[in-house]
Amino acid sequence: MDVEKIVLNGERNVTLTAYTQPVEGEFNHISKRPAVLILPGGGYSMCSDREADPVAFPYLEAGYQAFILRYSVGEDSVWPNPLDDYEQAMALIEERADEWKVLTDKIVVIGFSAGGHLAASAATMSQHRPYAAILGYPVIEGDCAKIYEKTAPDVIAAVDENTCPCFVFATRTDNVVPVKNTIHLLDALEKHEIMFESHIYSHGSHGFSVCNTSVTADPEAYSNRVPHWVADSIEWLKDIMGDFANGQMKQPRFSKSINGNREPFLNVDCTMAYLSGKPEAMKIIEPIMHMSAGQGQEQAAQVDGAAMMEALKLMTLRHLLSYAVTYAGMSQDLIDQVDEQLRQIPNK
Amino acid sequence: MDVEKIVLNGERNVTLTAYTQPVEGEFNHISKRPAVLILPGGGYSMCSDREADPVAFPYLEAGYQAFILRYSVGEDSVWPNPLDDYEQAMALIEERADEWKVLTDKIVVIGFSAGGHLAASAATMSQHRPYAAILGYPVIEGDCAKIYEKTAPDVIAAVDENTCPCFVFATRTDNVVPVKNTIHLLDALEKHEIMFESHIYSHGSHGFSVCNTSVTADPEAYSNRVPHWVADSIEWLKDIMGDFANGQMKQPRFSKSINGNREPFLNVDCTMAYLSGKPEAMKIIEPIMHMSAGQGQEQAAQVDGAAMMEALKLMTLRHLLSYAVTYAGMSQDLIDQVDEQLRQIPNK
Amino acid sequence: MDVEKIVLNGERNVTLTAYTQPVEGEFNHISKRPAVLILPGGGYSMCSDREADPVAFPYLEAGYQAFILRYSVGEDSVWPNPLDDYEQAMALIEERADEWKVLTDKIVVIGFSAGGHLAASAATMSQHRPYAAILGYPVIEGDCAKIYEKTAPDVIAAVDENTCPCFVFATRTDNVVPVKNTIHLLDALEKHEIMFESHIYSHGSHGFSVCNTSVTADPEAYSNRVPHWVADSIEWLKDIMGDFANGQMKQPRFSKSINGNREPFLNVDCTMAYLSGKPEAMKIIEPIMHMSAGQGQEQAAQVDGAAMMEALKLMTLRHLLSYAVTYAGMSQDLIDQVDEQLRQIPNK
Amino acid sequence: MDVEKIVLNGERNVTLTAYTQPVEGEFNHISKRPAVLILPGGGYSMCSDREADPVAFPYLEAGYQAFILRYSVGEDSVWPNPLDDYEQAMALIEERADEWKVLTDKIVVIGFSAGGHLAASAATMSQHRPYAAILGYPVIEGDCAKIYEKTAPDVIAAVDENTCPCFVFATRTDNVVPVKNTIHLLDALEKHEIMFESHIYSHGSHGFSVCNTSVTADPEAYSNRVPHWVADSIEWLKDIMGDFANGQMKQPRFSKSINGNREPFLNVDCTMAYLSGKPEAMKIIEPIMHMSAGQGQEQAAQVDGAAMMEALKLMTLRHLLSYAVTYAGMSQDLIDQVDEQLRQIPNK
Repeated sequence: MDVEKIVLNGERNVTLTAYTQPVEGEFNHISKRPAVLILPGGGYSMCSDREADPVAFPYLEAGYQAFILRYSVGEDSVWPNPLDDYEQAMALIEERADEWKVLTDKIVVIGFSAGGHLAASAATMSQHRPYAAILGYPVIEGDCAKIYEKTAPDVIAAVDENTCPCFVFATRTDNVVPVKNTIHLLDALEKHEIMFESHIYSHGSHGFSVCNTSVTADPEAYSNRVPHWVADSIEWLKDIMGDFANGQMKQPRFSKSINGNREPFLNVDCTMAYLSGKPEAMKIIEPIMHMSAGQGQEQAAQVDGAAMMEALKLMTLRHLLSYAVTYAGMSQDLIDQVDEQLRQIPNK
Repeated sequence: MDVEKIVLNGERNVTLTAYTQPVEGEFNHISKRPAVLILPGGGYSMCSDREADPVAFPYLEAGYQAFILRYSVGEDSVWPNPLDDYEQAMALIEERADEWKVLTDKIVVIGFSAGGHLAASAATMSQHRPYAAILGYPVIEGDCAKIYEKTAPDVIAAVDENTCPCFVFATRTDNVVPVKNTIHLLDALEKHEIMFESHIYSHGSHGFSVCNTSVTADPEAYSNRVPHWVADSIEWLKDIMGDFANGQMKQPRFSKSINGNREPFLNVDCTMAYLSGKPEAMKIIEPIMHMSAGQGQEQAAQVDGAAMMEALKLMTLRHLLSYAVTYAGMSQDLIDQVDEQLRQIPNK
Repeated sequence: MDVEKIVLNGERNVTLTAYTQPVEGEFNHISKRPAVLILPGGGYSMCSDREADPVAFPYLEAGYQAFILRYSVGEDSVWPNPLDDYEQAMALIEERADEWKVLTDKIVVIGFSAGGHLAASAATMSQHRPYAAILGYPVIEGDCAKIYEKTAPDVIAAVDENTCPCFVFATRTDNVVPVKNTIHLLDALEKHEIMFESHIYSHGSHGFSVCNTSVTADPEAYSNRVPHWVADSIEWLKDIMGDFANGQMKQPRFSKSINGNREPFLNVDCTMAYLSGKPEAMKIIEPIMHMSAGQGQEQAAQVDGAAMMEALKLMTLRHLLSYAVTYAGMSQDLIDQVDEQLRQIPNK
Repeated sequence: MDVEKIVLNGERNVTLTAYTQPVEGEFNHISKRPAVLILPGGGYSMCSDREADPVAFPYLEAGYQAFILRYSVGEDSVWPNPLDDYEQAMALIEERADEWKVLTDKIVVIGFSAGGHLAASAATMSQHRPYAAILGYPVIEGDCAKIYEKTAPDVIAAVDENTCPCFVFATRTDNVVPVKNTIHLLDALEKHEIMFESHIYSHGSHGFSVCNTSVTADPEAYSNRVPHWVADSIEWLKDIMGDFANGQMKQPRFSKSINGNREPFLNVDCTMAYLSGKPEAMKIIEPIMHMSAGQGQEQAAQVDGAAMMEALKLMTLRHLLSYAVTYAGMSQDLIDQVDEQLRQIPNK
């Protein structure tokens, strides 16, 4: 492994540390690697060493290149300085991607506490949008952010449909950055149909990093699930980003989108709510629905019809069609056929 | 292990199945056992077998007595019938606790989907309040509940300071019971200062139960973290309920409360926000705060003073005093001394 | 789940307890289930409850039917009484397999301590050979067995090529049944080319069963890896026995044999040592080996040629051919082609 | 983290790479760190990169300093060159321990395959004896070692009572370095009363290193337990070496010895076999044994008396006395009292 420390901004004391691993040769199934860009916490007044190297190690083990950004803090943390530091770091990684063997479309940002605020800003406001963001006990809301840096923006307001997938973890009993920061972020991600995974562990105080005995003298003060976020985040990244195979990354098992509503063409992964506003699509779908109707009518007396219709709208067409296949005896090929038809229709 | 199936209500087809294990003898460190009461899901139209026995097994292995309640469904699920069934089941377990070797103050309710709605109702509205509730992809909000049972109440509105601790899990991509049910429940639990743990896994459709190959033919359709809720919930219960030892349960490692604000006497686990409204307490606290002041003044230029005060209010006095001990050289005994003084003052 | 307790032998107080789960209906991917037959320990003087139900629960959760055999102990444990009890239990399970929904060719025996001696006897000496045996801190050697039952046989001597696959676990510091029982069993299994998995944990005294707080008051007295045998044994069974799928078990990912030497026809999974004694096979193999030679000659100076030849004999032909494909540019199809040719030759 | 690569022997191309982490400051519970010295495999003809950095990362994460020794290979691997390289590396680490923040009495050697042979040699034959050795699919027996280096010694013959504790892992189906190497090592460790932990996973070919997707393109070819050795070895080291706390390592939970037979004074952790040869000790012990006799006499008819006596000899006195406390009503203080008496007697 090579180590290189680069000064990005001497005046503001901003540095990027690069830990890069070899590819090919004995790693002949890997030609380039995904990367993590780590943003330590520290209340915008310092960058904690406890949330730097100890975080890099497990991702290095998982095969990632690891970068640590020590961004502008103290008097220099006036916004948008920290986000500018992030953009500069990403630009440099892209520039040296061939040398550092980095897959530039697979860079994941990881931030903790105030660094989680910066990572969440990267996820929502940056030019160099990361593939995904891992946010540890993050500062999210404007009220909380202002405690550490008066000029720091509210992240909730910036969540939109272009926000990247997020993995968010925190503890219920954190009384430095209250857990409502995390909950309200999840709420915003949900509203804007963004993919996420979230783990809120019951017990543990703020700032636990990877929560092993190398970073905390008192592991007993934390619920024993807390350290699980490390392995879980790596598995989550495999879910949505794929894994190493034959010199390039395998297709991921799952989509990084909640549904197909934002693809260039309509498809069976669109929600019924979305498709119901597309007359061309409904011409294809309605006849099938009539054919497979009759299901669920027994329950009709007891349920609220309007509420049920609302529920169906949440489903993707794929999910509804799978019922038609299972319960109404429709052909196994139905889903693929409908998908092919829908993919003729531009999504605009 | 003994099995007994009891008809609670013949007309409504309500039954309670009891799986009970021996105590003492070769289990000489156990004289009575905590219990789980399992409420399977099924849209208030049936009680799913996939969320019955398979859920009982891991808790039996962990040493719990396990009860499965098949509550009123279909036309009988008119509210409050299902909650009445729950009350009746709890009353029976209490009545036969000596025979069944159950610790009646340590009964945990576990519910899934519509059964999660019923379990959350038990957590918030019941006479026989459970020690804790484990809620799997639960129906929570009124809108969603009405899809399955027109008369079912909204749980969010019922959350208050008497709600029991909750362990809530779901998947992001559930498009039957949308994940916002879970998020909004967490939001309500946070607002009312209730202890919880929460795991929202990214991928997987509704109704996965324990998510092993015994209940699903396609485990690959789920993020590999999904089955972790089982072991995690058991560990969480140990955190707040204690573990077996010498014939009675050990004191739990952690409190089941977020802070000490609701104890009969004031104490160092009260939040500063709470204590600041108690003049008698502030007479004790303020002199100490002045002594240890000076800390953090360097950051004053950069932070919003009012915001900082807001932040301090979130902290417990114990947490603040631990800073005074660590950074301002106050005596190690300080926290215990202050606690003793505060515990003279009734909390009213 | 149904529970049934059957008296197999009233005079000797032998009973079989059956815990059986439903199939089909909501478990529509399962039509019959594999089973575990549990043999508790107790020095052939009793059958421990701590190694009965607590062991059944995790296998029930994994989808198995679970049977507990309380075999002949005390004065009745004169050999072969306990093994006869085992045969009788297996015969009954086979007889009632349709009713109990058991896959009779997928019954796994699990035994602990003296019950591990009986399970190992079943693995090596029984008429009703189990699919696999899970052996916990087992009594294996004659010297050790005689401590508990004078007439009990030595298992090491009985290991042969018909022994079933074994999963063996123990602790290094067991000073009741010394770990050499386990080591010498592994040695015998290795010599006879039997598949096994083995975990010897460093610290922990005898008789820990599933090693959770439900069976031991002092989990801190054991290395924290000890309880892993439970989940690991279930995963191991999936490796060699397959998993649930569409009403029958999927093909397992791995063979339950170490190599192909005992299949009815020759094949690429035979070892080179075995094939080298089959002239018909060598006529096919030798030309390929010559073509791909030249590999490894650089190392010739430094290694002992005879030793190297010995090493190659350990390899399967598949493994050797995979080198030829990777390093000597042979066609990807080579392995399948050679396998097809070899499978024309009866293995006798 | 700092990286430094030091040429230990230019002619033989021997290098030591040091990955060292900071102590104190934000790691204020750590003043020095334990270390791992990693010996990659490669058949004594190369040092594999796949068994170098990827192995260092998890131990770095766990708080260790990590060193990688690329020892003499090819024509230079004539014995004792590789062991000399090891001694030189250990001497250098000791010399620079203050600078590198290494606890010199807590250096663990980790080797794979041929590197496992070298690590096992370090464990049994070196001047700089490691605290413990972690051996991955190691070459152990002379026959096997000679395949890779004619002059390499047999390790089995070198195992004695001064061998350090060993953590050994391998796969059953390894057909490059047969599993009997591991089994026979365990046998030797057992005979000489050396502490060990061992995991033999059923399926997987040779050379898997940490067995994640960063080092293998085909994780499906391995039993899913294989990667567990990494975390398990770290936990095992905590068991016998202690963990970080307040600037020095905590006392370990368990002894690194199997019993107390080799301590400077007699004690209750000595085995009965050992104590029975010490008349001074037996004068203390025999009266207690007579007092608590009567236990177990019922079983006398059925067991072989001589065999039983043999079994008792395996036990430590502590274990026997704990029976006396539990079953014969002896005082709780008995064990400590006897220990104190025995510790007056020099062990010679």
